[in-house]
Amino acid sequence: MNKPVPAITTGALPASRKIHLPGQMHDIRVPMREIAISNEDPLRVYDSSGPYTDPDCQTDIARGLADLRGDWLITRGDVEAYTGRKVIPADNGFAEGKRLTPAFPIQRPPLRAVNGRAVTQLAYARAGIITPEMEFVAIRENEGRIGAAARDGEAFGAELPDLVTPEFVRAEIAAGRAIIPANINHRELEPMIIGRNFKVKINANIGNSAVTSSMEEEVDKMVWAIRWGADTVMDLSTGRNIHNIRDWIIRNAPVPIGTVPLYQALEKVGGVAEDLTWEIFRDTLIEQAEQGVDYFTIHAGVRLHMIPMTARRVTGIVSRGGSIMAKWCLHHHRESFLYDHFAEICDIMRAYDVSFSLGDGLRPGSIADANDEAQFAELRTLGELTKIAWAKDCQVMIEGPGHVPMHKIKANMDEQLKHCHEAPFYTLGPLTTDIAPGYDHITSAIGAAMIGWFGTAMLCYVTPKEHLGLPDRDDVKTGVITYKLAAHAADLAKGHPGAQRRDDALSRARFEFRWQDQFNLGLDPDTARAMHDETMPAEAHKVAHFCSMCGPKFCSMRISHDIRAEAEKQAGMDKMAELFREGGELYVPLKEDELVK
Amino acid sequence: MNKPVPAITTGALPASRKIHLPGQMHDIRVPMREIAISNEDPLRVYDSSGPYTDPDCQTDIARGLADLRGDWLITRGDVEAYTGRKVIPADNGFAEGKRLTPAFPIQRPPLRAVNGRAVTQLAYARAGIITPEMEFVAIRENEGRIGAAARDGEAFGAELPDLVTPEFVRAEIAAGRAIIPANINHRELEPMIIGRNFKVKINANIGNSAVTSSMEEEVDKMVWAIRWGADTVMDLSTGRNIHNIRDWIIRNAPVPIGTVPLYQALEKVGGVAEDLTWEIFRDTLIEQAEQGVDYFTIHAGVRLHMIPMTARRVTGIVSRGGSIMAKWCLHHHRESFLYDHFAEICDIMRAYDVSFSLGDGLRPGSIADANDEAQFAELRTLGELTKIAWAKDCQVMIEGPGHVPMHKIKANMDEQLKHCHEAPFYTLGPLTTDIAPGYDHITSAIGAAMIGWFGTAMLCYVTPKEHLGLPDRDDVKTGVITYKLAAHAADLAKGHPGAQRRDDALSRARFEFRWQDQFNLGLDPDTARAMHDETMPAEAHKVAHFCSMCGPKFCSMRISHDIRAEAEKQAGMDKMAELFREGGELYVPLKEDELVK
Repeated sequence: MNKPVPAITTGALPASRKIHLPGQMHDIRVPMREIAISNEDPLRVYDSSGPYTDPDCQTDIARGLADLRGDWLITRGDVEAYTGRKVIPADNGFAEGKRLTPAFPIQRPPLRAVNGRAVTQLAYARAGIITPEMEFVAIRENEGRIGAAARDGEAFGAELPDLVTPEFVRAEIAAGRAIIPANINHRELEPMIIGRNFKVKINANIGNSAVTSSMEEEVDKMVWAIRWGADTVMDLSTGRNIHNIRDWIIRNAPVPIGTVPLYQALEKVGGVAEDLTWEIFRDTLIEQAEQGVDYFTIHAGVRLHMIPMTARRVTGIVSRGGSIMAKWCLHHHRESFLYDHFAEICDIMRAYDVSFSLGDGLRPGSIADANDEAQFAELRTLGELTKIAWAKDCQVMIEGPGHVPMHKIKANMDEQLKHCHEAPFYTLGPLTTDIAPGYDHITSAIGAAMIGWFGTAMLCYVTPKEHLGLPDRDDVKTGVITYKLAAHAADLAKGHPGAQRRDDALSRARFEFRWQDQFNLGLDPDTARAMHDETMPAEAHKVAHFCSMCGPKFCSMRISHDIRAEAEKQAGMDKMAELFREGGELYVPLKEDELVK
Repeated sequence: MNKPVPAITTGALPASRKIHLPGQMHDIRVPMREIAISNEDPLRVYDSSGPYTDPDCQTDIARGLADLRGDWLITRGDVEAYTGRKVIPADNGFAEGKRLTPAFPIQRPPLRAVNGRAVTQLAYARAGIITPEMEFVAIRENEGRIGAAARDGEAFGAELPDLVTPEFVRAEIAAGRAIIPANINHRELEPMIIGRNFKVKINANIGNSAVTSSMEEEVDKMVWAIRWGADTVMDLSTGRNIHNIRDWIIRNAPVPIGTVPLYQALEKVGGVAEDLTWEIFRDTLIEQAEQGVDYFTIHAGVRLHMIPMTARRVTGIVSRGGSIMAKWCLHHHRESFLYDHFAEICDIMRAYDVSFSLGDGLRPGSIADANDEAQFAELRTLGELTKIAWAKDCQVMIEGPGHVPMHKIKANMDEQLKHCHEAPFYTLGPLTTDIAPGYDHITSAIGAAMIGWFGTAMLCYVTPKEHLGLPDRDDVKTGVITYKLAAHAADLAKGHPGAQRRDDALSRARFEFRWQDQFNLGLDPDTARAMHDETMPAEAHKVAHFCSMCGPKFCSMRISHDIRAEAEKQAGMDKMAELFREGGELYVPLKEDELVK
């Protein structure tokens, strides 16, 4: 708490350099990561880690990241700076003295739409405008490819183009099938897109609780999470200093930041759900929109009549926001104020381009509760609300479960497509069994990979600490790597035209005993290298044609090389194929008495 | 190496006691684990951990486990003791002096079938006999249940009965759909069954390599692996002392032990694959059968004409046994001696009831190679060999891949069912992407859960060390827990009638903040407890209605309890449901001007 500037992790990943690809339509520089490979062309991969991994950038957490988007916003000419809302002690949970996180040192006036206009990417898309943000994400999604491999996958109706064009991006956003979460006040943002016809994305949750953590730890977690591949980060802080912590995070975040405004609203009423009001919530929306939050989770689908549907559930309502709203509704005998005031919420969000993440307050928190009446009642309401939000040019994605056994996962995707008009789906896992606390990053990776394959656009990670406590930075990394591999497995299965390049490059390295290349191409080079070095640490081992799993005599890959060399010596494999075919010269068939009796 | 008796882990798991259920038809005692729950009846679960977790048993690794099956074998009257093959220095890789692992202290004459009879569970099943082994596994599979929950799953044609009967077991074995791997010389075995219509099982691989590990470590790993739930263990040792290490393992193993005899055969010819001969291999089969190995992986499906099919693969042949056989075939320009002598192999195995695990020597070792011509050519041959083995009353299971992207997994199950006559399928993962070395327990858990759901009977685990080095005991535990959760997720999705009891019990404990119960019911109570205690270590925290994830004000489960209490106070949830329905008394609809524009 005494150290005002958090220590963060910077520096390139192994064998990697940051490159920037230029725009054609706009003056933009799109970051990407290039992994050097010892005997091949380097591999370009998507890169969410921001300037922290760019040796050419000096980052200073107390100053924040550079303004990337200011010029784009000015050019559009539809926003104005204004004197924002004053920060009051309630915004930080009445923390004071040493307990008060310092305010972020640099404050600037927030921007807001002029004249009640919508300044959302959806509005621009519908108007036929390709924004710099749209071109940016199009270039990003192609990962520096200029072509595409032959298609091989099952996309369940998703349509992934060989190469993403800015026009394709515009069309997808206009159709509501994709969003670019990009609050006009988050000017440090490197834009990204969430949609079924793009790479599957992942979100990492950070944030303190009343029990533990601090601003320094949370900023460090954000930088750490994106280093390992988190595409967005949600600040789910529920303790003190929510406002100031969020400032430090957003000013230093190159990725979209999401929040659940209801948490801070609840803090403002001392944790008494019944004391929540629309006015306090509305004020919190504006407070957070001015800071630059890119998407809000809004549990407007938890309606009064749905609450009794949860009465017989094994785990009740497991969503924080959902349980808070349910408590409020029940106490007041009233419909949710979020549902009642939904149009006004839209009016606020369209003025800043904050995207909706329509919350799954009634998601199942146990296998027993999966796909129940409450869950799908809410989903149908989210579909209605999607239409209202779209009518006001607000970008929308839909949140999803939860705990779902494998055989019920496809139905979730089908129902969401049916009721929510192809808005992007954003699930938490799902966990495919309840019986492994401590390993829920794995129980959920199974469900996440599957639902990502079926069409889910973004997967919210789960760490080993799920159900047990607040994740620390090690948990954050484990969760991120786990969800990156799940998202990639989904891209492969969908037949994403760029996905298999990395698998192939790594497997070639593996087969050729280029150990450093294998480590460098993996999602976590440090861990792979360290594990290998536990038993074979010497420098010479990095070119050894075996590892300690099998030793030199039993390494199948080494033997495979011997086989190929032998075949070349003899005849060449192709000729061999001819010789060895059934009936060919070298075929020695089973004798008669050895055949099936 | 100086310590002749390995240190192993013993003692009950938390809140657990060992119980034994009696047979009705035979004099048997079937072990099970009973987990105490603070406010419910205890939960009985399947237990592979053997006497090591039974406080009533004093285990002594230097003496081995008790003889469980001797009486059953004598009663059958179809086996005889004989003077077994002499152990020669080549069996232990010519290790000597301090490098020679001591022989297991107790040696007894091996048993063998009399008069060329088949003493396999398959032969008995076909003869209409229900053996003690069959009744044993039937009781085990029911986990102490006397009834079954309503069926809820998608079994893809599998037929899981509400309660398994000994007759059902017999019929499944007779049909070839299941096996009980139970060498007559493995008398310490607690029998178990592998089949699509039973609980999905998992295997843990252990074994030294030329680079690392020792007998002490390997015996410890075996006991550790079964403690956490491994149903079988394969000793894949490839270094020195293979014979003696195996003895120490089998004599102390309550679970089936599998091997790949080709490894030891290769060691006997100094690691030169071309010098392998049928005679050396045959001798090795007998050596290992006499020790009590319950199943042999035999790569008889790697045939000469298939080798060129691997020429363009990215990762060649990744199976140790497959690559060894391919090298031999190519060098000698001959059909595989395993294929040529298959009938003789059957004659040996039927005399001891060693089950076949028909090896997938040509499995894909990279996403690029998945489902290729070589892989399925071998699979079809395994189907032919299955018929030959069955004709000789040998039990058979079929090994499978490997590295397979999600969209290609179902085809593997379909092809195996089509070509292998419903013999049990036993896969290694599959890994669903190549890009995460260090996390391949997770990339493969995704594929394993899916293929288990589709009908695979046993899943061979993968540890975090895959591709990087030999697993240590921590890796073994991580791999086992990961695969237990994957197998359980598969059972749930198949609608196994007993599976959801544990999820429900744990979720009830979670919802009611019975933290100790939640930990105790999980697959890894120690880790769950430790993770929770990182931030909330005090005794009082074990009844706290929150954890550090959300703190007291934001815990959705606590709020859910408040909601239910409030509802009860007001009217009771059922009445509430009536009041809250759309159009009911308390429903407050959206105003007209708030509806969709």
